[in-house]
Amino acid sequence: MTTRHTYDQELENLRQDILRMGSLVQMAIHDAVQSLAKQDVELAQKVIDGDDVIDKLEIDIEDTCMLLIAKQQPLARDLRIIATGLKITTDMERVGDHAFDIAKIAQKTAKQPLIKPLIDIPRMAAMAQKMLQDSLEAYVNLDIALAEQVCRADDAVDDLYNQVFRELLTYMMEDPHTITQATQLMFVTRYLERVADHTTNIAEWIIYLVTGQRLRKK
Amino acid sequence: MTTRHTYDQELENLRQDILRMGSLVQMAIHDAVQSLAKQDVELAQKVIDGDDVIDKLEIDIEDTCMLLIAKQQPLARDLRIIATGLKITTDMERVGDHAFDIAKIAQKTAKQPLIKPLIDIPRMAAMAQKMLQDSLEAYVNLDIALAEQVCRADDAVDDLYNQVFRELLTYMMEDPHTITQATQLMFVTRYLERVADHTTNIAEWIIYLVTGQRLRKK
Repeated sequence: MTTRHTYDQELENLRQDILRMGSLVQMAIHDAVQSLAKQDVELAQKVIDGDDVIDKLEIDIEDTCMLLIAKQQPLARDLRIIATGLKITTDMERVGDHAFDIAKIAQKTAKQPLIKPLIDIPRMAAMAQKMLQDSLEAYVNLDIALAEQVCRADDAVDDLYNQVFRELLTYMMEDPHTITQATQLMFVTRYLERVADHTTNIAEWIIYLVTGQRLRKK
Repeated sequence: MTTRHTYDQELENLRQDILRMGSLVQMAIHDAVQSLAKQDVELAQKVIDGDDVIDKLEIDIEDTCMLLIAKQQPLARDLRIIATGLKITTDMERVGDHAFDIAKIAQKTAKQPLIKPLIDIPRMAAMAQKMLQDSLEAYVNLDIALAEQVCRADDAVDDLYNQVFRELLTYMMEDPHTITQATQLMFVTRYLERVADHTTNIAEWIIYLVTGQRLRKK
């Protein structure tokens, strides 16, 4: 049995790894949407290559959580820190997957000019990134109010999703030549909407981490 | 500290709850795709209403896992059973979410006749359900060979996804009147492809449960 001091250090390392994973997926979403908007296939490739690092980090974090449970007998807050680690890495890994999916679409769509300059999609991405940023900050400071703000912010992303979706549908109907690219952009908007959902899950886990109370999933 | 007998009983109850959740999401996918193919809005509503039960079960399973970790000092296989419970419920809950998404689309698309009788989408659903069924059986019997078979089956679902996606694109280009419904069906195929991915994650966790070895996420 390690000392309490070592144990606290290990919990702190876990916290740092989770923050690092959060920053990586946040940057991946940013770069993926930039590569789409700027038709930058090299940047898209960087996101695609970076996904392995994120997946590897998830597995490392999970292994650390398992070791901590096995070596210690975590209770109350400590146990919630570890269980939260096991759960939010799943949501962060999915955010990383969506960045990967968007980067793949960026490479496909880079072959033709964009049917329109992308404005709302980068806006959706910025909103989702802000939610991720806030959820990480809420995690660092165990800030319930900020975590609750993240949950509320999800509605604005959903509204923008519905608006962009309808716009793309109109484009396709007015000009069938836009169909192939517009369907790809529809998927991007859907992925960004899902990123916001995953971030909401993360915020709900932070509320649990602090309060021990689970919110009902929407 | 409870007796080993009670502890084993609690682990068995956890296993039963996980199996129950697995059956529920499997049935939800089946019913959702049936409601889409048969334009049966009542069946779609049944799937939508049932999602709360699945979400509630996920939270119950997570609470049980936390209690078991807190009350016992699980090691090796026991710890992996509990950690696997925490992780695969996330994937199962997402499968349930996708059933919910498909049921919502079934209600939207039921307003007009289908642009074509659905054959490949129910086929994709059947493949995904079989993967779920096998992963649950692999979980019950700790059957690595079957879990590995589930991971391999994912490729066939991906192939069918790409085929159906191209078909729907052709429909839209040849007849813009099909665009609204075809985009909805594109999302359904994407959700089913994701369901197969989540099921692959579950199979990978079962391999971990038995061997203690993590496969790299694809």
